[in-house]
Amino acid sequence: MDPITSLLGSLPPDFYITDPDVVAKYLTDFRHFRTGASRAVLRPRTTAEVQRIVAACAAHGVPLVPQGGNTSYCAAATPSPLGGELVLSLERLNAVRAIDPTNLSLTAEAGCVLSVLQEAADAAGLMLPLDLGSRQSCQLGGALSTNAGGISVLKYGMARDLVLGLEAVLPDGQLLNVLQPLRKNNTGYDVKQVLLGAEGTLGIVTAASLKLARKPAQTVTAFLAVAEIDALTTLLARAQLLTGENVTSFEYISHHSLGLLLAAQAGLRHPLEAPARHYVVMEAQTCSPLLGLEEAMAAFLEEALGEGLVNDGTIAAGGQQRDQLWYLREHIPEAEVANGGSVKHDVSVPTSALPSFISQASALVETHGAGGRLSIYGHVGDGNVHFNVVAPAGADPAGYKPWFEREVSPRVYDLAVTMGGSFGAEYGIGIVKLDLLERYGDPAKLHMMRALKAALDPANLMNPGKVVRA
Amino acid sequence: MDPITSLLGSLPPDFYITDPDVVAKYLTDFRHFRTGASRAVLRPRTTAEVQRIVAACAAHGVPLVPQGGNTSYCAAATPSPLGGELVLSLERLNAVRAIDPTNLSLTAEAGCVLSVLQEAADAAGLMLPLDLGSRQSCQLGGALSTNAGGISVLKYGMARDLVLGLEAVLPDGQLLNVLQPLRKNNTGYDVKQVLLGAEGTLGIVTAASLKLARKPAQTVTAFLAVAEIDALTTLLARAQLLTGENVTSFEYISHHSLGLLLAAQAGLRHPLEAPARHYVVMEAQTCSPLLGLEEAMAAFLEEALGEGLVNDGTIAAGGQQRDQLWYLREHIPEAEVANGGSVKHDVSVPTSALPSFISQASALVETHGAGGRLSIYGHVGDGNVHFNVVAPAGADPAGYKPWFEREVSPRVYDLAVTMGGSFGAEYGIGIVKLDLLERYGDPAKLHMMRALKAALDPANLMNPGKVVRA
Repeated sequence: MDPITSLLGSLPPDFYITDPDVVAKYLTDFRHFRTGASRAVLRPRTTAEVQRIVAACAAHGVPLVPQGGNTSYCAAATPSPLGGELVLSLERLNAVRAIDPTNLSLTAEAGCVLSVLQEAADAAGLMLPLDLGSRQSCQLGGALSTNAGGISVLKYGMARDLVLGLEAVLPDGQLLNVLQPLRKNNTGYDVKQVLLGAEGTLGIVTAASLKLARKPAQTVTAFLAVAEIDALTTLLARAQLLTGENVTSFEYISHHSLGLLLAAQAGLRHPLEAPARHYVVMEAQTCSPLLGLEEAMAAFLEEALGEGLVNDGTIAAGGQQRDQLWYLREHIPEAEVANGGSVKHDVSVPTSALPSFISQASALVETHGAGGRLSIYGHVGDGNVHFNVVAPAGADPAGYKPWFEREVSPRVYDLAVTMGGSFGAEYGIGIVKLDLLERYGDPAKLHMMRALKAALDPANLMNPGKVVRA
Repeated sequence: MDPITSLLGSLPPDFYITDPDVVAKYLTDFRHFRTGASRAVLRPRTTAEVQRIVAACAAHGVPLVPQGGNTSYCAAATPSPLGGELVLSLERLNAVRAIDPTNLSLTAEAGCVLSVLQEAADAAGLMLPLDLGSRQSCQLGGALSTNAGGISVLKYGMARDLVLGLEAVLPDGQLLNVLQPLRKNNTGYDVKQVLLGAEGTLGIVTAASLKLARKPAQTVTAFLAVAEIDALTTLLARAQLLTGENVTSFEYISHHSLGLLLAAQAGLRHPLEAPARHYVVMEAQTCSPLLGLEEAMAAFLEEALGEGLVNDGTIAAGGQQRDQLWYLREHIPEAEVANGGSVKHDVSVPTSALPSFISQASALVETHGAGGRLSIYGHVGDGNVHFNVVAPAGADPAGYKPWFEREVSPRVYDLAVTMGGSFGAEYGIGIVKLDLLERYGDPAKLHMMRALKAALDPANLMNPGKVVRA
């Protein structure tokens, strides 16, 4: 009997599904880069069931591909097309185990959808600071296993920074329980850090304790037209100074991206009178009902307009106008899709180098990109630019995009790395960026990665072929 | 020839010192728990010299004990008394390599004294948020290798949370260079996390890039007399709400600790009129010159007094009064030393359990402690209590302390762990807490620790015997 048949035979039938029509839903990644094969999808309901499955896979030598909401941009949760791996879906492991409002912590299982956790925190009078565009479908285990970023990183940090405790099943089936929601716990190696961001290649995250924050009592949102790209970092510094580092988001939108979106969605209005080359959606928040955040934001805008750093700007008058401004930022990816999709470069540089990177990388595409259309947006406070390129109007995206990735993308990545930056800010490695990691990664880092993989998953059964080649 | 003689012969003579009088200064830990032996102290001036030393040690099989400011509370930087190890002092590797005010980052070498880095950040118009009582002597490499905490953790996090990039020499002499000061960089395993907090057992930290923060434009410091210990967490929550989470420190001082200090230092005055059982030194800061932080703090104090949560309180009128309030908090350890020193329990619990832990643990000492005097202080926002016990007046501390550690301390640790807490919040493991780690540590965590140690330092040459037994 082959190993998968033996394995499935050793598990209760309600642990998995084999109906090919159902299984098929788990086999293609979100961006349709890859379609894999899996004879079954394992769907544990408890951590104990995860342990039983992982131990059985270890015994039978069957590799696992853990999957949450399947929203990876790097095909990190898609099995190999050869059919020797099984998908392990965490979607039924979805209990909110505890909320401690005094300790400002929430403990929940890997399969919880992010928006469900946000709602649970809200119902407890608090806020979960982790927020991503995919909040309606991504799951906690995936967000932690990819150290997700998102739009609140400026104030609250990456997913890793929000984790107080972790529960995971190690490749041999052992349960790692360091789930206590403690803010200080210096007792030996912080082993949870090894699993966070490892994309399921070193074990299966089953639950985590996360930091919560107090709900904002005041939110002020503005949309700015910025005269020169060099002004972006100055503007953010001024805004942080005047608002007391209460800027939660400072999101850059190039005129290219806004133009794509306004062209793609006819009902949308430009939020400002006169067009500009650069825009910013910024938001400041405080849980204090007393501090004068609106006055601080107004003082910031007045100063920026007075000095000519900003040509025009508007502060949202209410929740509806706020939603309209955020709509613009969040629907750029859809506008790219409406134009045949984009070649994405998820790049970061030191924030001091961000304006220069955007200028130089844009010039590269103008010179070498054969008419490709830029779509640039990103998180100024983190130095993370989504530097995307859409096929020229009229060109076939299916032909243009692979050409660009082969011929021009290396120049974009070289530029970022030369400027002290990274070829991968928040999407992770998965399968898609393995070559980039091997090209740009520090050799001693790659050595450490292989050593960690070999030490913790010697049989290479945890999401094999992702992040690190065995 | 013995391995150490061969090793030293292979290195330039200006790499090390052998004068026994000088070497002796490196051999006893800060708390005088242990005195070790080392035939020389290796003192590299550059990362390349560290690499050469580590590679030579690997070749000759000589173990290294890295040492920074030698301020460990757990004898983490003290060599074995058997003399087979060499101390590697990082003190001459002490350049500030770069400050990027726009990127809010500082890159510096391991041997930099913390206060020197604080001054460098200050001179650049910014602030290094890492701050410890030992700031005048502790060094960056040690602070990162122990994931130091301190008095600003509430707002800025532990040392780990401040690290953007790291440079280290691995046990085989390879240079790990992931030093780029990037806020987002999801490119494979975050290997720097493995070295942070590892107490030099997996490699030698040589440099790091740290986050900087904006300098406070406003600082408001208060001293509160708190009626009931249960009110501590409520008070902190109220203060955070009204000040917009700008509370940087919320430090508990028990009447025991304040009493010890006032008795030990005759010139000191009690800052409030009437004595109470519980006190808090709290500080709020904002970089904004506009926000009404003083008004928010005054509103908090008025509300707390009105509800009887606070019996009495004072807000410092200026820098001098602020220094006086902080003096009380920072000199408690000296008052303990003046009374023969203390048995220290560096415990953390979820903040929701903090008042209950303090009450229950105090009752334990009253019942079983044979008259030992409590000295309790700590960081309410982190759940970290320094639960210390001084020998009874008139008793010999040299006899009392070991007795207490053997007979009563296990009850204190059991209580903390039973309440979901930790036996070690910020001091680390070193040699002193190895037994506690093996007793209370999660078995799968200990398994992972041994696997990481074996994978990265298979010859066990990096600070052997610390943190994890080979």
